[in-house]
Amino acid sequence: MYPESIKNLIESFKYLPGIGEKTAERLAFSVFGLEDEQIELFSDSLIKVKEKIHPCPICNTFTDTDLCFVCSDVGRDKTILCVVEDTKNVFLFEKLGMFHGMFHVLEGLISPLDGINPEDIGLDKLIDRIKKEQFKEVIFAFRPSIEGETTALYIKRVLEGMGVKVTRLASGVPMGADMEYVDSLTLERALNDRKEIE
Amino acid sequence: MYPESIKNLIESFKYLPGIGEKTAERLAFSVFGLEDEQIELFSDSLIKVKEKIHPCPICNTFTDTDLCFVCSDVGRDKTILCVVEDTKNVFLFEKLGMFHGMFHVLEGLISPLDGINPEDIGLDKLIDRIKKEQFKEVIFAFRPSIEGETTALYIKRVLEGMGVKVTRLASGVPMGADMEYVDSLTLERALNDRKEIE
Repeated sequence: MYPESIKNLIESFKYLPGIGEKTAERLAFSVFGLEDEQIELFSDSLIKVKEKIHPCPICNTFTDTDLCFVCSDVGRDKTILCVVEDTKNVFLFEKLGMFHGMFHVLEGLISPLDGINPEDIGLDKLIDRIKKEQFKEVIFAFRPSIEGETTALYIKRVLEGMGVKVTRLASGVPMGADMEYVDSLTLERALNDRKEIE
Repeated sequence: MYPESIKNLIESFKYLPGIGEKTAERLAFSVFGLEDEQIELFSDSLIKVKEKIHPCPICNTFTDTDLCFVCSDVGRDKTILCVVEDTKNVFLFEKLGMFHGMFHVLEGLISPLDGINPEDIGLDKLIDRIKKEQFKEVIFAFRPSIEGETTALYIKRVLEGMGVKVTRLASGVPMGADMEYVDSLTLERALNDRKEIE
């Protein structure tokens, strides 16, 4: 029923997460409203992303240069390392603009239930790096979850005796949240992690 | 901060309706999870859609062949014409599979408040077509709205005296709807359009 190219475009949008048949159709038809240059940029950047982007050999952050923008920046604080579970989170922290240390991107989190073990998430590379470089502190910035805790605990044990301070992000009640909508696990953590007002 | 190609891809996703910064970032990063062939198909179909798709010279339905799949089908009922406001709706009816007449796609609906007048939506082509071809019935399948009513009424007046039966889709309570959530305009229309049970 649909012309071939429209059908292919609908299928393509359906490859993306959270996009079903109806949304894919809506997006595909919206392409007719775009300028030629917009469509060319779109088409081109899809190919270029796959061709040019690779993980930074030091920290795994996606980059189109030899080293990523963090590892190649001599102005960064090389004594503090923030470990994240996904390259997206590096950009999240950079947008904040208040962390000036280094990053390391794991390939996910340990999750024995899903068959993801320590050897599957690139921990060797992280441990080697920590052994070689002179970090004073390693911060785990994983999502608050069983997998996050497991991974943090596992790495902390491996690093024991290496004289590195190991920290994790604070978890607790998000700013602006309505107390009644905060789940009990978060509330429990917020209570345990309570801070003295100075 | 983002590598050039990722930045361009994020910008590209933002061209699409309903996609803001955060969603665009999420979609752009999800492209790394796609197979090479999927990305090639995606990239390729964007260009092909713009290059190959054009409105059918008879009915305006988007097509990649000379005439669209409806106008080139000799098996259709050429005595009944369904007029829609958007090419998407042709495919909507075709999916239903129960309408076997012809279609005509307008370029939107009359909306004086938005400065869209009868001459802006391609009515001349529709009127010419109705004059030339031997339709017994013309169905308006516009969305139920002031603009839909205005457009239907305008065309009906132009067609007066031409011996064509003019109808519109029934409007009323949607199937499966909870009566208490049906708005009063819909309820009013459902009451006015009530049907005798036979």
